[in-house]
Amino acid sequence: MSGTTRAIGASTPRLDAADKATGRAEYADDVARPGMLYAAIHTSPHAHARIRGYRLEAARAIPGVKAIVTGADLAGPHCGGIIKDESMVARGKVRYVGEPVAAVAATDPETAGRAAAAIEVDYEPLEPVLSIDAALAPGAPLLHEDYPSYVKTVQGGGHGNVVFESTVEEGDVERGFAECDTIVEATWETQAQHHVYLETNGCVADVDASGRITLYATCQSVHHIQQRVAEELGEPMSRIRVRATRVGGGFGGKHASNIHSIAAWLARAARRPVKLVLSRMQDFEIQRSRHPARVWMRTGARRDGTILARDVRVTIDGGAYADESPPVLAFALLMSRGPYRIPNVRARGAAVYTNKLRAGSFRGFGNPQASFAGESQIDELARALGLDPVELRLKNAMRPGDTAFGGQQVPSCVLRECIERVRAAQRAAPPLAPRPGRRRGVGYAALSHISGLMGTAASVQLRTDGSIALATGCVDIGQGSDTVLVQICADALSVPIDRVSYAPQDSDSSPYNWKTAGSRSTYMTGRAVALATHELRAKMLAHAGDMMECAVEDLELRPGGLVGLKGLPKAVSFKEVALRSLFHSGGPIAATHGFVFDGPGFDPKRAAIHQLAFANLGVYTYGAHCVEVDVDEATGAVEVRRAWCAHDPGRAINPAACEGQIQGGFVQGIGYALTEAMHWNAEGWLTTTTLADYKVPGVLDCPVEILPILLEDPDPTHPVGAKGVGEISLVGAAPAIANAVADATGARVRRLPMFPERVLAAIDARA
Amino acid sequence: MSGTTRAIGASTPRLDAADKATGRAEYADDVARPGMLYAAIHTSPHAHARIRGYRLEAARAIPGVKAIVTGADLAGPHCGGIIKDESMVARGKVRYVGEPVAAVAATDPETAGRAAAAIEVDYEPLEPVLSIDAALAPGAPLLHEDYPSYVKTVQGGGHGNVVFESTVEEGDVERGFAECDTIVEATWETQAQHHVYLETNGCVADVDASGRITLYATCQSVHHIQQRVAEELGEPMSRIRVRATRVGGGFGGKHASNIHSIAAWLARAARRPVKLVLSRMQDFEIQRSRHPARVWMRTGARRDGTILARDVRVTIDGGAYADESPPVLAFALLMSRGPYRIPNVRARGAAVYTNKLRAGSFRGFGNPQASFAGESQIDELARALGLDPVELRLKNAMRPGDTAFGGQQVPSCVLRECIERVRAAQRAAPPLAPRPGRRRGVGYAALSHISGLMGTAASVQLRTDGSIALATGCVDIGQGSDTVLVQICADALSVPIDRVSYAPQDSDSSPYNWKTAGSRSTYMTGRAVALATHELRAKMLAHAGDMMECAVEDLELRPGGLVGLKGLPKAVSFKEVALRSLFHSGGPIAATHGFVFDGPGFDPKRAAIHQLAFANLGVYTYGAHCVEVDVDEATGAVEVRRAWCAHDPGRAINPAACEGQIQGGFVQGIGYALTEAMHWNAEGWLTTTTLADYKVPGVLDCPVEILPILLEDPDPTHPVGAKGVGEISLVGAAPAIANAVADATGARVRRLPMFPERVLAAIDARA
Repeated sequence: MSGTTRAIGASTPRLDAADKATGRAEYADDVARPGMLYAAIHTSPHAHARIRGYRLEAARAIPGVKAIVTGADLAGPHCGGIIKDESMVARGKVRYVGEPVAAVAATDPETAGRAAAAIEVDYEPLEPVLSIDAALAPGAPLLHEDYPSYVKTVQGGGHGNVVFESTVEEGDVERGFAECDTIVEATWETQAQHHVYLETNGCVADVDASGRITLYATCQSVHHIQQRVAEELGEPMSRIRVRATRVGGGFGGKHASNIHSIAAWLARAARRPVKLVLSRMQDFEIQRSRHPARVWMRTGARRDGTILARDVRVTIDGGAYADESPPVLAFALLMSRGPYRIPNVRARGAAVYTNKLRAGSFRGFGNPQASFAGESQIDELARALGLDPVELRLKNAMRPGDTAFGGQQVPSCVLRECIERVRAAQRAAPPLAPRPGRRRGVGYAALSHISGLMGTAASVQLRTDGSIALATGCVDIGQGSDTVLVQICADALSVPIDRVSYAPQDSDSSPYNWKTAGSRSTYMTGRAVALATHELRAKMLAHAGDMMECAVEDLELRPGGLVGLKGLPKAVSFKEVALRSLFHSGGPIAATHGFVFDGPGFDPKRAAIHQLAFANLGVYTYGAHCVEVDVDEATGAVEVRRAWCAHDPGRAINPAACEGQIQGGFVQGIGYALTEAMHWNAEGWLTTTTLADYKVPGVLDCPVEILPILLEDPDPTHPVGAKGVGEISLVGAAPAIANAVADATGARVRRLPMFPERVLAAIDARA
Repeated sequence: MSGTTRAIGASTPRLDAADKATGRAEYADDVARPGMLYAAIHTSPHAHARIRGYRLEAARAIPGVKAIVTGADLAGPHCGGIIKDESMVARGKVRYVGEPVAAVAATDPETAGRAAAAIEVDYEPLEPVLSIDAALAPGAPLLHEDYPSYVKTVQGGGHGNVVFESTVEEGDVERGFAECDTIVEATWETQAQHHVYLETNGCVADVDASGRITLYATCQSVHHIQQRVAEELGEPMSRIRVRATRVGGGFGGKHASNIHSIAAWLARAARRPVKLVLSRMQDFEIQRSRHPARVWMRTGARRDGTILARDVRVTIDGGAYADESPPVLAFALLMSRGPYRIPNVRARGAAVYTNKLRAGSFRGFGNPQASFAGESQIDELARALGLDPVELRLKNAMRPGDTAFGGQQVPSCVLRECIERVRAAQRAAPPLAPRPGRRRGVGYAALSHISGLMGTAASVQLRTDGSIALATGCVDIGQGSDTVLVQICADALSVPIDRVSYAPQDSDSSPYNWKTAGSRSTYMTGRAVALATHELRAKMLAHAGDMMECAVEDLELRPGGLVGLKGLPKAVSFKEVALRSLFHSGGPIAATHGFVFDGPGFDPKRAAIHQLAFANLGVYTYGAHCVEVDVDEATGAVEVRRAWCAHDPGRAINPAACEGQIQGGFVQGIGYALTEAMHWNAEGWLTTTTLADYKVPGVLDCPVEILPILLEDPDPTHPVGAKGVGEISLVGAAPAIANAVADATGARVRRLPMFPERVLAAIDARA
């Protein structure tokens, strides 16, 4: 076989870049169908209330109104993640301000909006529960008292507002602390962050004469949305088709939404297509956030810096519905040891219900909360020990062959190299000039994350001209997976990437894929693509061997779509191989490969994590961040000046795409660290529903230099060695910046975002 | 395994029926893309001329004109079928009136039309060749003198206007005739018939920023059109995507067209989408016809009716380009023995070029021409022998185990039963009252045809809720294959058909399929669907066996998506099987099956047919028609009063669909027999370009009763025993009607269509 690797390792421009740059790319709001209606949602003005009844006469009387749905129409099972506690529109109760209560489809958006406003709902207001403490208070109002509590019925006991509990433990944490010379302990608080994808959630639901639905949706998985809509509509999945449009960002916020089922329901009722695209304000109110969390953590070490014990308690605020709170909590616990050798660790956690927007999956998936606490505490421990925080990290860093928290073996690990590389890069960089009134600080964070989870598949066909058709169910949400997957396929066949077509995702035809999530596309779907392509190649070589009357071992692929006889000019083209297959033997050459992540998982004896939260994990990847900040001691403003981000992408299929992911993730981490926060008032109203109130970093908020460093440590379980870098790049920003602020000012900020007033307060609180 | 066969054998309404009836179905002309341009074609006013040059200034100067293509722009290889002699627009010469010479894309149809008219082409007129005789005359002008003649260079010799020659022979025809007591001999002539699908050919070519083309087309194969457009545009197939819209009829006329490449070329040039939908007049002028043919035939028998020898010469008029003339000729020869045991047969044939519209594939594919002659001659032979024509057919009819012409073994054959069933049905029917001035006649025809050819594939996936996703590359052109393929899949899993989704055809994602042609969809793609579904079922049972801890042999499918333990109520649902697969083992359950027709083919020693004309044939199916006609002896008008059509669909998957195919085919056969004819004047202008000039049978032209009789003879090579009935149903109409006219009047009409004046002339010519 030829060793040609032209496609892999090339910073190929994104296949969709030109269409996106020129406005040709079709997003959900660009979809129009004949006779299309427009939907509007009537939302709850109460954070917590019982629904006594609906009065729909006024809305129905408005000309142009074609269908209305309320909770009274729903009879089927509830939906959601592991815990099914939710419906497309509220049933019986509302549990957050902005919750969809009813929806209308009408001939134009204005009429739909007027009709939604004309719906009258009779509420019995209930006391809202707006914080973790309020939720866990004895006698607190229960959000889901009319619904079997998972934590009570499955996990056995606990407060009725607790969604889920979990524990991961190894060693003997009490004995570990007893051997420590120095112990530090603190509590961190993190906020609700919103995904703020450029494109809000939206879809168009079309319907055929038999009532079969076709959804055009911006999404992270056609199969997942198909399943949820089918459940809510009481239809088999065969009667719900989901087609992904181009996706203007996801970050974990487009796995699921009320809107798909609402649009599908209205379309089925009205027998006409229905468009439902959320405004930015609605997207803030209706979708989901990153989990606000409280992390209490205690870490102890010998005076030489050997860390012996850590005790952690993570409480996450899940909002009104369970959604992905169980796996987010479980993953936060698995990440709470940090990438360190700590023999005695106990991590306990709970997710609670509150009367706020549900929290769910978001780039990092519990790791940003855990690592903000953990990596801040490493610096505090170093200070308490009088050691250099980088040296403390290097001393305790995981090494190849170690075991991750929960029991998973880690065959390789470049964490120490990542830490050393960012330190060396920062030290080698020409110093920035000091600025009057600003204090300069340098901070570090060390990180681990996984790439993997669940199942995926790919199929490859040889076409009659020798070009290739590749299909997977993996939706490119802007991170570049389309390009990377095509590169993997093209590389395995030594052909240019324009000889490989890649099919858009369509639940009718795409091979199964779980989701674009868990930093998994390059690792999981990329692996399926490589394996399917290798199978195709083997079939092609078998044909070529017959044609040239030689053994397969004597053949090699040559660039340009040729199978050649090693050492001789003799060759047959892929086209000839394709035609031979068509005319003379087992039919068109095609190969499909599906698999479930099959590497080691956590040890169930150590990790009391419901198996459905993580049936399978993934491969570990490591990284380190170093930042330089300027802190204005008069205002508390923190400015990130430079950042170095070292990551292990395994084999970098597309280095520019890896670097883009790293830079993009780090910028979103800056927002998490410094500016982004959703805020609810005392009545439970979300007050940050515009981009003026909710501050996403702009160009001027970003450091001029975010320098990605790729430390390629090819994964042995992946045919081309790839891992994912989509999430880990966000995780280090907040703790590295907090550590840099402490380095600059001596003040420790333990609450995100590090608004200037909080930095000032920390400075004032310095001992 | 359960023997439940709910889905197969049920006359399920077409899955697309409601959408078509309510106007929701999307045809090519319904497709609209943002910024779409409209194309218009400049066509040749000459039947034969050399192109000296183009003047495009006037056209280019018209505001709104965005792109023009002429033959001067084309540099790549020619395209076509086996013989590549054609281009999307003429190069160097024009060879028929109406041939596309240039095309324009403009912002609206009117502007495009004005610009097309403003194109000036400098022609040097050449003498047109408008008939078989003119083409074969010594010194006749050559159509393709500047292009290597296939018959000369590959077949070695012959007239330069001969496209292709072929011979099939078995036994010793001269010795056979020497042993005959009675010999009959005559020549038949058939006309050019047009497909007259309800929807004319049309497409929209979209283009992305990289120049990649997506064609939305009414077609009989996405893969075939993809290949042709890629060849003409000089692109790899990976850069041409073809998506089938709903198809308003095909009949062989939508395999290929100039329009796809023209639209794609213009879209690529203008970087905007281009729509090109032919008017009815353009579709008549530009597309293709059934081959006009001259069939000379000589048949001899012993006086007891044993047929001993037949000699045949078939000459077909291929029009200006080779297109599918070679395989049509070859198939006509293979069909020219008829479904009879004749030990000594020689069939020779040629296809010739003329300066008329190309002829190509059309329902029956050479068989209607051969069978019109052959089945007419059987009646003439019976008359000469003084035998009953039905008895003569029964005496000589093929039986199971016989060999088809060309050498293919035929394991089963219900021809005699078909003949006997239509005779019995006609005899048992209450006689129609005689009508004054009309003579009543009864006529028969016996038929054979094949179902098969080339390769196909299907893929099936189990979804997470236990429903099924089926995908094939088979385009439903109105015959109902979508429904039948879903029935086959649903049946194999004992689920209702709405639990199976069926993906539309898209060259990016659909499994390979050659074409919807050759009566092959139910046999070929249906077989792939059955085999893929059986493989999926086996995988599901293996999981279920693990789950219930029992052997696969102890399991059975139960209706409603259950795998049960035989003899016990214990069962697991398909959903549970799907989830187990997802979480615990080899990934999502899916299966793909592709194959090439692998049954016996003709014997190359007997059949001098170029292998590319038919690499593989298919399974044989048989049928018989009986018609009653009234002939008005004053006007010559023939009215078909009743018809009985017995056919072997193998296993009838959807009896109503089989009956619909039989009735539809027979009506198209009535048009062929009596009314439909394309006519060119002495300058080569087609004069029949509207449905007023070209008479398709209307409701009043059809018999009140066309009674299909299904004689199910399940095919042993097909998992559910299916064969195709799409073409054979047309074949018998013309000879049965001609035989009935002879029965009524004693006059033999040997030229189609049997216009009243031709019937009158035959009556006048009675001995």
